[in-house]
Amino acid sequence: MQALSPHIQPERLWDDLMELGTLTDPGQPYTRRSFSPRFLEGREWLRHRFEQAGLACRIDAAGNLIGRRGAQSPDARTIMTGSHSDTVPGGGRFDGILGVLAGLEIARAMRDAGVTLAHHFEVTDFLAEEPSEFGLSCIGSRGMTDCLTPQHLALQAPWGETLAAAIDRMGGDASRLSHAQRHDIAAFMELHIEQGIVLEREGTEIGIVEAIVGVTRIEVIFSGRADHAGTTPMDCRCDAMVAAAGLITAVSHLARDAARAGRGHVTATCGIVEVLPNASNVIPRQARLVIDIRVSERDACERLLARLRAVATEQAVACDVTLARFEIQSDSPPVACSPVLAGRLEAAAGALGLSSRRMVSGAGHDAAFIARVAPSAMVFIPCRDGRSHDPEEWITAHDAANGTRVLADAIMATDASS
Amino acid sequence: MQALSPHIQPERLWDDLMELGTLTDPGQPYTRRSFSPRFLEGREWLRHRFEQAGLACRIDAAGNLIGRRGAQSPDARTIMTGSHSDTVPGGGRFDGILGVLAGLEIARAMRDAGVTLAHHFEVTDFLAEEPSEFGLSCIGSRGMTDCLTPQHLALQAPWGETLAAAIDRMGGDASRLSHAQRHDIAAFMELHIEQGIVLEREGTEIGIVEAIVGVTRIEVIFSGRADHAGTTPMDCRCDAMVAAAGLITAVSHLARDAARAGRGHVTATCGIVEVLPNASNVIPRQARLVIDIRVSERDACERLLARLRAVATEQAVACDVTLARFEIQSDSPPVACSPVLAGRLEAAAGALGLSSRRMVSGAGHDAAFIARVAPSAMVFIPCRDGRSHDPEEWITAHDAANGTRVLADAIMATDASS
Repeated sequence: MQALSPHIQPERLWDDLMELGTLTDPGQPYTRRSFSPRFLEGREWLRHRFEQAGLACRIDAAGNLIGRRGAQSPDARTIMTGSHSDTVPGGGRFDGILGVLAGLEIARAMRDAGVTLAHHFEVTDFLAEEPSEFGLSCIGSRGMTDCLTPQHLALQAPWGETLAAAIDRMGGDASRLSHAQRHDIAAFMELHIEQGIVLEREGTEIGIVEAIVGVTRIEVIFSGRADHAGTTPMDCRCDAMVAAAGLITAVSHLARDAARAGRGHVTATCGIVEVLPNASNVIPRQARLVIDIRVSERDACERLLARLRAVATEQAVACDVTLARFEIQSDSPPVACSPVLAGRLEAAAGALGLSSRRMVSGAGHDAAFIARVAPSAMVFIPCRDGRSHDPEEWITAHDAANGTRVLADAIMATDASS
Repeated sequence: MQALSPHIQPERLWDDLMELGTLTDPGQPYTRRSFSPRFLEGREWLRHRFEQAGLACRIDAAGNLIGRRGAQSPDARTIMTGSHSDTVPGGGRFDGILGVLAGLEIARAMRDAGVTLAHHFEVTDFLAEEPSEFGLSCIGSRGMTDCLTPQHLALQAPWGETLAAAIDRMGGDASRLSHAQRHDIAAFMELHIEQGIVLEREGTEIGIVEAIVGVTRIEVIFSGRADHAGTTPMDCRCDAMVAAAGLITAVSHLARDAARAGRGHVTATCGIVEVLPNASNVIPRQARLVIDIRVSERDACERLLARLRAVATEQAVACDVTLARFEIQSDSPPVACSPVLAGRLEAAAGALGLSSRRMVSGAGHDAAFIARVAPSAMVFIPCRDGRSHDPEEWITAHDAANGTRVLADAIMATDASS
């Protein structure tokens, strides 16, 4: 088995990362929102780079840009890598993008080394991994794995376009989504920045992802009464925000306790808080919260949910308000990565003399969807201060190259073994 | 002493209330925001009504519309009544408006009865009692009492106009504010809806206000770090909203305890809660609260403030965030009403066979400013369910007439006694 890593050129990869970063909404670096003209500009740049690397490009029915280096046998199965080129608003230059450009660099390394795999090799830029203006994330990887429903396709952006129309505008064909579904993927491996502080803090160079957390989002609405803040005695109030505050405290405490119990990854965050009417002299008549729960073991989520629901009910009674909603908005189960692929990534890191550790991904990724149809795994590299979804997001060229080398050698090992 | 109350015509008063209510922003009843074209439309209607009632109209330098029924002697002092015709967005038809139209009805009753007082009698529509687009309330009554500062006059509305320019646009003259200051007011009495549920709940017809609460507004900002909600372990977080939630809970509990201690009126409300970035998958990096504290005894406010500051500091430490701000935004002291005028209102109610009780106004009013330059008092009538600042705000024509009669007779008693 040939090692591809010596053909990885760190400067070439880094130059690509910096150059794609220049294609940003100027007032809000580094932004290429999915479905926007800026995103299409980035895609155009990518397609050109893919073709220069000898990849045959197409956009599948789900709007994924796929560059392919074909095997000698057309009947071969496919080893895929990739990630996404879209960003959150004011996002960074590496989240998603690194995984796409690492795939591109590996394709160039194959070309430079004159390697043809026994498998087709594909680099995918998945459409809209980040939460999009349609209120949905991982649109391309959902489409590739039969997880885009008619309800999803009918979702509308604020400007009135349906998701179906937007996918078509990206070059996909929402009326033939089944054409995007894949049954030929032998292995999928994705390189990504950690988006956390574990690797950096430990000084570990490579993270081998064993599992990707499930993400459960709960919308909670307390309904009270908008009385005058001055004329309503303290014991005659129906203050929706006081009830919500009790729940926010409980989210933090219960998740901390669950995480300390040591049964896998548990986080819970109340990131959205909206009060009506939000006026200093009016008692809040409504408080809306969105709670984000992430676990690596499903029953941890069930337990946490049950306790939060109990606290929400108690708070509503204590504050004389109504628990008008306690509803799961979205719910994806935790996903176990392929132990075989994880082992290959770990072996590749070891052979390159890189320190590594097994870990859980606390962020969702396209790999979590692809895992439904193919053995999948992820490799992480450190990012500075754990920052992500932020213009300050940063990695070193050295770490980018390390991750790309590990991925390249694991791809070669997979090609040789299956 | 002549009783004026038999000349009060409830239907005439009620028709005015309903008619002025029709002058509203159509999409958002019942709205006449101060400084808006709709407000000027209401003022035009009022001026016409004032003139029909025989009142001589002027707008003072602070932008207050004043209708005057002169005494025989030009050197006489003035008995003033009035309130405000501006509303909050989506406000009601009675808050403020009742006090202005009751004054108008009393002027008509004087005309009908052929009464000329020993005092000048004035009905004032104070400019912008509600929080205005300049972030300031009670603008007209501040102007009448030397409480409008150059800093206030430089405040800007979202559309860029200064308060000084806006006062001029209302017909005032901000460059000669001293002309609005009054030293001739012998008594000021204001009729208002209670904006609370005490009178209705007890079945009491008339509230005699002994004191108007002081209102202290505190802005609190906790600053944390906007990390990824999934990849940041629970014990590595700097979650600004968790700190804020602890403080919101404390605001409610501490104010309830203070109110139960029975040393006057105490309320505290956290009506404004704003989280940044307010995204489900990002740990809140900032939480901003505005806390509204109202007390009838100043030291209750000092005690509550000290305890809240201590809790805010504790919460910041516990959540590893910074207490970036804990600052008094505005602070008005509690105001005691004139015991003499309160006694006259109480006597008038008794003579009319109406039940009454002494109470504290939990809402601020123009009377709290006028009390700085003249003996002042207020009379309250019940409003349905205590609702106010709401399209559902409602009173009965009967209660409106009751309050107006009490006010009319107390004005006559004051005219006779001083």
